[in-house]
Amino acid sequence: MAWQKVELAVIAAYEEMKLIPLGPHLTIEKNWSENPIDLEWWKKRDVEIHHDLNAFLDERLRFLPDYLHKYVHKNITSYDTEEPAFHRMLLSATECVNVYYDSLIDVMIRQANTYRYTIMMARTHGQEAELQSFGARILTWIVDLRQAYSGVELAQRNLHYCKLSGAIGKYGDMNPEIERLSLSILGFEPFHGATQIIPRTLQVPLAQSLMNLAMVIDKIGNDIRLSARSGRPLMQEPFGKKQKGSSAMPQKKNPIRTEQLEGMARMAKGFCDMIVGGIRTWEERSIEQSSVERIAWPDLFHVLCQALSVTRNVMDNLKVYPDNMLEEVYLARGVYASSAVKEFFKSRLEISELNYEDVYRIVQLACFNVFEPSADRLEIRNYRPSSMRMAEIQLSSLSALQQPKVISIKDFLPAANLRITDALDVCQEEVERYNRFLSSIFQDEKNLTAWQQIFSPSFLLRNEDLLFFKILPSVNE
Amino acid sequence: MAWQKVELAVIAAYEEMKLIPLGPHLTIEKNWSENPIDLEWWKKRDVEIHHDLNAFLDERLRFLPDYLHKYVHKNITSYDTEEPAFHRMLLSATECVNVYYDSLIDVMIRQANTYRYTIMMARTHGQEAELQSFGARILTWIVDLRQAYSGVELAQRNLHYCKLSGAIGKYGDMNPEIERLSLSILGFEPFHGATQIIPRTLQVPLAQSLMNLAMVIDKIGNDIRLSARSGRPLMQEPFGKKQKGSSAMPQKKNPIRTEQLEGMARMAKGFCDMIVGGIRTWEERSIEQSSVERIAWPDLFHVLCQALSVTRNVMDNLKVYPDNMLEEVYLARGVYASSAVKEFFKSRLEISELNYEDVYRIVQLACFNVFEPSADRLEIRNYRPSSMRMAEIQLSSLSALQQPKVISIKDFLPAANLRITDALDVCQEEVERYNRFLSSIFQDEKNLTAWQQIFSPSFLLRNEDLLFFKILPSVNE
Amino acid sequence: MAWQKVELAVIAAYEEMKLIPLGPHLTIEKNWSENPIDLEWWKKRDVEIHHDLNAFLDERLRFLPDYLHKYVHKNITSYDTEEPAFHRMLLSATECVNVYYDSLIDVMIRQANTYRYTIMMARTHGQEAELQSFGARILTWIVDLRQAYSGVELAQRNLHYCKLSGAIGKYGDMNPEIERLSLSILGFEPFHGATQIIPRTLQVPLAQSLMNLAMVIDKIGNDIRLSARSGRPLMQEPFGKKQKGSSAMPQKKNPIRTEQLEGMARMAKGFCDMIVGGIRTWEERSIEQSSVERIAWPDLFHVLCQALSVTRNVMDNLKVYPDNMLEEVYLARGVYASSAVKEFFKSRLEISELNYEDVYRIVQLACFNVFEPSADRLEIRNYRPSSMRMAEIQLSSLSALQQPKVISIKDFLPAANLRITDALDVCQEEVERYNRFLSSIFQDEKNLTAWQQIFSPSFLLRNEDLLFFKILPSVNE
Amino acid sequence: MAWQKVELAVIAAYEEMKLIPLGPHLTIEKNWSENPIDLEWWKKRDVEIHHDLNAFLDERLRFLPDYLHKYVHKNITSYDTEEPAFHRMLLSATECVNVYYDSLIDVMIRQANTYRYTIMMARTHGQEAELQSFGARILTWIVDLRQAYSGVELAQRNLHYCKLSGAIGKYGDMNPEIERLSLSILGFEPFHGATQIIPRTLQVPLAQSLMNLAMVIDKIGNDIRLSARSGRPLMQEPFGKKQKGSSAMPQKKNPIRTEQLEGMARMAKGFCDMIVGGIRTWEERSIEQSSVERIAWPDLFHVLCQALSVTRNVMDNLKVYPDNMLEEVYLARGVYASSAVKEFFKSRLEISELNYEDVYRIVQLACFNVFEPSADRLEIRNYRPSSMRMAEIQLSSLSALQQPKVISIKDFLPAANLRITDALDVCQEEVERYNRFLSSIFQDEKNLTAWQQIFSPSFLLRNEDLLFFKILPSVNE
Repeated sequence: MAWQKVELAVIAAYEEMKLIPLGPHLTIEKNWSENPIDLEWWKKRDVEIHHDLNAFLDERLRFLPDYLHKYVHKNITSYDTEEPAFHRMLLSATECVNVYYDSLIDVMIRQANTYRYTIMMARTHGQEAELQSFGARILTWIVDLRQAYSGVELAQRNLHYCKLSGAIGKYGDMNPEIERLSLSILGFEPFHGATQIIPRTLQVPLAQSLMNLAMVIDKIGNDIRLSARSGRPLMQEPFGKKQKGSSAMPQKKNPIRTEQLEGMARMAKGFCDMIVGGIRTWEERSIEQSSVERIAWPDLFHVLCQALSVTRNVMDNLKVYPDNMLEEVYLARGVYASSAVKEFFKSRLEISELNYEDVYRIVQLACFNVFEPSADRLEIRNYRPSSMRMAEIQLSSLSALQQPKVISIKDFLPAANLRITDALDVCQEEVERYNRFLSSIFQDEKNLTAWQQIFSPSFLLRNEDLLFFKILPSVNE
Repeated sequence: MAWQKVELAVIAAYEEMKLIPLGPHLTIEKNWSENPIDLEWWKKRDVEIHHDLNAFLDERLRFLPDYLHKYVHKNITSYDTEEPAFHRMLLSATECVNVYYDSLIDVMIRQANTYRYTIMMARTHGQEAELQSFGARILTWIVDLRQAYSGVELAQRNLHYCKLSGAIGKYGDMNPEIERLSLSILGFEPFHGATQIIPRTLQVPLAQSLMNLAMVIDKIGNDIRLSARSGRPLMQEPFGKKQKGSSAMPQKKNPIRTEQLEGMARMAKGFCDMIVGGIRTWEERSIEQSSVERIAWPDLFHVLCQALSVTRNVMDNLKVYPDNMLEEVYLARGVYASSAVKEFFKSRLEISELNYEDVYRIVQLACFNVFEPSADRLEIRNYRPSSMRMAEIQLSSLSALQQPKVISIKDFLPAANLRITDALDVCQEEVERYNRFLSSIFQDEKNLTAWQQIFSPSFLLRNEDLLFFKILPSVNE
Repeated sequence: MAWQKVELAVIAAYEEMKLIPLGPHLTIEKNWSENPIDLEWWKKRDVEIHHDLNAFLDERLRFLPDYLHKYVHKNITSYDTEEPAFHRMLLSATECVNVYYDSLIDVMIRQANTYRYTIMMARTHGQEAELQSFGARILTWIVDLRQAYSGVELAQRNLHYCKLSGAIGKYGDMNPEIERLSLSILGFEPFHGATQIIPRTLQVPLAQSLMNLAMVIDKIGNDIRLSARSGRPLMQEPFGKKQKGSSAMPQKKNPIRTEQLEGMARMAKGFCDMIVGGIRTWEERSIEQSSVERIAWPDLFHVLCQALSVTRNVMDNLKVYPDNMLEEVYLARGVYASSAVKEFFKSRLEISELNYEDVYRIVQLACFNVFEPSADRLEIRNYRPSSMRMAEIQLSSLSALQQPKVISIKDFLPAANLRITDALDVCQEEVERYNRFLSSIFQDEKNLTAWQQIFSPSFLLRNEDLLFFKILPSVNE
Repeated sequence: MAWQKVELAVIAAYEEMKLIPLGPHLTIEKNWSENPIDLEWWKKRDVEIHHDLNAFLDERLRFLPDYLHKYVHKNITSYDTEEPAFHRMLLSATECVNVYYDSLIDVMIRQANTYRYTIMMARTHGQEAELQSFGARILTWIVDLRQAYSGVELAQRNLHYCKLSGAIGKYGDMNPEIERLSLSILGFEPFHGATQIIPRTLQVPLAQSLMNLAMVIDKIGNDIRLSARSGRPLMQEPFGKKQKGSSAMPQKKNPIRTEQLEGMARMAKGFCDMIVGGIRTWEERSIEQSSVERIAWPDLFHVLCQALSVTRNVMDNLKVYPDNMLEEVYLARGVYASSAVKEFFKSRLEISELNYEDVYRIVQLACFNVFEPSADRLEIRNYRPSSMRMAEIQLSSLSALQQPKVISIKDFLPAANLRITDALDVCQEEVERYNRFLSSIFQDEKNLTAWQQIFSPSFLLRNEDLLFFKILPSVNE
């Protein structure tokens, strides 16, 4: 029992300072360890006197001869007992978080290395952007977790300070040296300037950094959910062999674990908000923060450990579909290289009358062109059926369509065959100017060789090694 | 078990519509009522298939002959079962709140009437303002509670709608008439346009209005705490005869109950915030809201019922000190009538060269004058001791001071003895002009009589009756 | 100027009650309308006296002859002027919201009808579930908006009450009849039981319901973003012909509008939270809520109107790709009918030894079977390249793969060719039993005909008409 | 313009690495500094292309000859430009906060020293507890501010990292060495593992620690408000000589500044919450955080600087009334020494049959006894008038009461005159036992001398020096 430890430490400190005779500390410790706390008695007493710590002391004093009573809780106030016990509990709980966190990071690192060369589309705004390896995406998750966790570590340091400075923190009857010694026995240093309690500014950053950690987990869970959308899922959380996805729809594999991560982050935010309010207590303290802290702190730790554990489990058993990732790449028609393409053209502008802006528009136009649907498909796209019957015909037409040929801008641009499109504000004359430019570039064999090069993953991802080396140095040296 | 009721209602609806033969409903109901749910079996099954409702159904089906299986959970999805059960629970919990609320309001009304003529200072900005009865302050608490509670009642109405419209809410295999009938058996009307779940916009207002109620309680608790500050407490929450206020300071009567009300409101806010996030679920639903709702809703109701119950207890046994209230009034030196005083002078301005602004400054000056400390006291006020020794002398001097005579502006102003003060920007000449004005006014005996009148509580509180009549009509007719 | 109107209404009320002579009201109104407020003068005065309303009165009194001064602000306190003006502003702002809201709903209804027969996959948990029309999804958005907006309308009603009951709300020098008349001139009824201010419980529900509306908009925006993910986008927000998606990647069409909706909801939540805190003001009021409300209310309205307007614009010009929607349906291989399939088998169980649970597993197995990749593809799926070179080979292999034949469970199940799979816990013997059951069912021609039927959209969506009729009655009768 | 600086730094880096010829950097810098940004042009362009950074580049390129265009924004993406500029702004704003903070702390330290020997009652739960100096209370404010501010300093360190790693943060076309050099020119180090943007986990702790600082300020403001309650105010915020407290009540000195501090903290919390949500952005980023951050960050800084500045002003000009503080001490009747009194008795228990618990009850009883009202006053206290007339009589009776003699427990306990009271569960027999104990103690002259001692401030506050020395070492050595 944490309170008992604090009471004993204070008695030991008095003895060490020779302010009381040697002896009571050991006797009391012995008596108490032989007589564990009677919770029923304690609760009953608390109902009577409405003061949990006084009730606790009354319970404990039952097991001591009268002459020892005066050494117990000597010159201190309830919160001199409670605060060190509380900080001790926060530190223990944080160590639990640390265990879950370390275990998650280990799995993350393993998976980052496993998928170091598994290629996928990166997405910004939900839109396909450039190429990356899945391992490199996991790296961004790892650094985000680390960043959030570094806040937990910083916040933890505050908790190595505590107080034993009496009812208003001014050491009324308390010898500051007794505070120093007692806290030192308990592993703390004194915080000077407390009121009856430690200022909550020492504790709140821990709640906030735990919440931030929960939000990073939420972000990771959300990314997995976004990649797990059926049709062409890139990855899925594990699904038990006997698991049922839905009572109505047997085909479902619902990402319930990663969805719950969002719920857990929302709860962590709620619990954190409750705790933050404690900073604003009246004068030398009032007790509104206490009722909140007794609920919100344990629940916050609980939800966070659960979130870390679920994430670890999901990451450990993540089902990854590289074929679908690559299919996405293949169907992206080379536009992931658009940035390199732009630079390719910019460095060859001298020979033409075109400018920087033209290059942008050429690449944009090519990207739009290669995704233009066939006439058949366009007809389906533009059709709005006015009855269910017509809708069924539309569905049949679509099902009957041939899969279109997939043309990459890698092949499309050298053909110098840009064409106008409704989607962009470009006129025929400009397009012709662009095509002339393209023709002139690609007549040069040297250019064509260089061109091939810029679409290859080994070129596009050439700098990912640096990230692995910087972020996972031990395994990537 | 709420889920079971829903399943049975659906079967009954099918029978009523003659879509299945008559009979299964009664047989199943009988079997199930004879075989209560085996929670252990259910939980074990849930661990296996990761789907609580499917596990529940598997457990229930154990007690039915095979030929009845097809009638159970027919054409519906898990949330067709869960949502009506959930709304039913929200409604029950709200009824609990209602009981606590009614009981609190009853006590409040009783106390408002008890203190209908107990006079106290009203305070704005924590500063003494005008006179009021304590009963009238309780009226302001009552209307605030009522206003918040009316939100609960409005929000409750949303919960009389529910859904049984299948996996995506489009009645895939579900006959809308079956929905209507089943819901009607359960006491609901169909909500058209649900997805797999009822839109959380139907539920969120309940959480918000419960939180608002918690915040009104917090406001009331805070007002009591402000009045309970020792020195000259106006009221105090009940304090048990064996209660201990502090382990270190036996003199303490801590307002722990009203302080906890602040903590409870903070928790209610946290739980409400968790629930609100559920509005934003993906497409036809994802499950992140579910984990949150299972924790936040019960905890929100729990904390609110506790807050209502504590407040009721505090109000019921509130210790009120009318002597201290009146002492505050007495020591306020009549400034509580300043508004009436101002009007008194404004209506007598014609005979002078003074204006509206001058009247304001006259009253302000008088109020400042009557509170000016004696020279002795001023000396103590302005002294900043430079050692503890000097501080002790300062304390002795103060203790030795005679209590100053209490002069009300009621007597002060007719004496026409305004004087300049450092605290206001007013010059000697102005003061003399003001005093001339006062002299001329108070030479008139009629004015003096009218003047006496405006300081009496029966004049100042003459309109409170209206409030009692409007707010508590039944008892004040 | 709203304050001026309130001051004038009070004077008019005094005249009407014949408590002052007839006349001042008109004279003052004339003088003031001829002399607009000098903002500079006012501000300067405010800096001097630190009281905005008193400074305002000083400014206004400059334009009145002395004899009229006494009629202005007679017996009332600052907040008697400010609260009606404030409620007036809240009501006006809410009317603005109403205009934006109506306009959005109009567009929504138009689009719901446009896409009444445009078929798409519904998604729960981000996973393909059953079929729906896009119009029907829009219906779920409409009812969610309506539900949230109904909260705004309810909350608005509170604002038709106001107060003119003096410095502490007890009608010190104020005649309650004057309050009634003045408020009636301004369009309000008196709220009995105010303190210096109207209890914030009357205003907070408006902030909360506005926030709820913002969250529904966020939900809609999020749904659009989820459907706009590139690869096979189902819809996209409008993209200008000259718009640039990204400075680096010209191919990008970023859904910046719908993304901003999430940001706006987050802001609305923040502003609402600020306002909610105002419920808890000290005693007869303190002023901490005022500074907050002056910022948070206008910003909340502003962000909400902007969110409504952006959503309207997005919905109005939404690019919809029915071909991609249908392709998703086609590629879903009939699993969207799984619920109907399950019922189909359940109603034909009598002839076999199988039970409810077996039917679930048959359908689950068929759904998993039809999505099993080819051996070639499986090889790619299971390969984890260990270098970039190998990754490039993997990509080439994938690009070279033939598109697999798309087999629907509609054709797969009658073939009675279920096979075991690693993903489910099912043994060869069970599978054979299942296949025997399927064979026996589908030998019956009648069954086969019924079977074909249950996959057709007109069957699966047969109940959507009801939703259109219930939700959009006027246009669907 | 911050963006321009980043663009120039990148060009300089390219030159330094000799990847482009020497020269462009200086030429471009010259052209741009000669041609300031045309905001109108920029805005117009932004409306057209919906991309603020691209519009900015278009504006800037106008002033460069075509041949230089290719060096601008080379291989980088918008957020490579925006993130360093953003971190630069956050750092500058934090430096502003630092200036306000330092200035506030200076004033706080000065006032702590000024009031080092000004004695007042400490309050826990709003109840008078033990003695302290007002200086020592200010110390607790100082350490709370410092603690919160230390969080700001820690959070600031995160902002010395930034990114220039391209559209998805994987250095697609960006040379990592160019990132390192450009950032170094701008004063940053690279953050490895960014996506398109820096993870918001680097920025969020700054928002949180700023909010924490605002909450400490709120706590201080609240403490001042609690001490400023009229009747016997201990301190008040400055009140201008021409200031008006209320339009209706000229006597009012409203603590509007400290009240606004609460409002500002509430706003800071709202803005912080908006920012926190940004952690959860989609995949390699989406843009919902951007719209939020552009509003919430500046507003958060603004509100915080304002709060610090107001607090500084209030503290600098705080009106302190030591006479009222001492009167409170005097009227507290020695109970502030109860803890020392308890220890006094506990160390003299041996000679008696009493125990620890008895001592507690003796002191509690004495404290209750000395505050018992006179019979006259008790009569007033227990009277509940049933009409206004009776209320006026009650007020007159109270006004006519003699001030009771103030008896301290210092004199009361030696008289051994404890008596039973309704408020505590104690019987006559016990009281007599207690009185016998007291008599025996105080017969001993030595005890009486020791007794006198424990009530003196120099004894009770003997340990405050330590706090001044530890917390303000430089001035207290």
